[in-house]
Amino acid sequence: MKFAVMAVLAAMVLGGSIWATRAAGDEPAARKQFVLNPIGQVKKADGRTTIVLEKEFQPALLGLDGWSHAWVFWWFDRNDNPQRRAVLQVHPRGNRDNPLTGVFATRSPSRPNLIALTLCKIVSVKDNVVELERIDAFDGTPVLDIKPYIPGYDSAEATVPEWIKR
Amino acid sequence: MKFAVMAVLAAMVLGGSIWATRAAGDEPAARKQFVLNPIGQVKKADGRTTIVLEKEFQPALLGLDGWSHAWVFWWFDRNDNPQRRAVLQVHPRGNRDNPLTGVFATRSPSRPNLIALTLCKIVSVKDNVVELERIDAFDGTPVLDIKPYIPGYDSAEATVPEWIKR
Repeated sequence: MKFAVMAVLAAMVLGGSIWATRAAGDEPAARKQFVLNPIGQVKKADGRTTIVLEKEFQPALLGLDGWSHAWVFWWFDRNDNPQRRAVLQVHPRGNRDNPLTGVFATRSPSRPNLIALTLCKIVSVKDNVVELERIDAFDGTPVLDIKPYIPGYDSAEATVPEWIKR
Repeated sequence: MKFAVMAVLAAMVLGGSIWATRAAGDEPAARKQFVLNPIGQVKKADGRTTIVLEKEFQPALLGLDGWSHAWVFWWFDRNDNPQRRAVLQVHPRGNRDNPLTGVFATRSPSRPNLIALTLCKIVSVKDNVVELERIDAFDGTPVLDIKPYIPGYDSAEATVPEWIKR
């Protein structure tokens, strides 16, 4: 038994996904989960904002300096508890004058999966460090992914609700 | 022992994060991991492209119809194995004429964390179903998050490398 459980734990840590049995009745008997391994963290010091990658990921930065902007995916780690992850509706920006809104219609940091997304201007890329103009994440925040910003693919003529214009 | 391990497993399934001990020498003794629970999946049928949410998340769609475009976060589930997650450099688009490039400087589906991001035009929102104009994900793909597209926050005057212009 002990060995079997350790094997499951090892598979989860190494492989990245597991199955979890659900309690509810007519829903699927199993639902897949996925595991994220942070690639580094945000560092804010001496007036500089950087992402410091784990050394092992440094090769994945090759060519990033050819792009002016990148999406930084980070984790709302301060909200990583069952209560915050169960929040489905909020008053945007914590303002009760804004209509009650589903979290998928807001950028709320309380949501089922705590993925945050920020478009950042790249200042420099050196070794395992990416300097950014700014990011709306705290010092020490775990970073999950970096993707280049591709204007034609990542932008649109869009309409937005009233509350976001206030 | 058995109880302790089961408690750890339960905490992982319910709580969403665990600590994993690392092997290497001068790196941190522990590194946090994060768990994602899919919120639904992509459905492509009868000429329609939709996201069908798990019923429990339907309240989180309130107000999404006030936005014309949304970011859909999905999982490159076909690449969820240690080999694909260990890929750090690729020739973009599988074309050897494109320079060897770090995955964080591409939108490659092989990368350490298999988060995919697509900007989608919203056709309609009804009950637990969001109809999209299109998405570059397969039928059955797990969906992780939906966030509204906010033009001023999510777009920039950007420069890009030569290979993406081909």
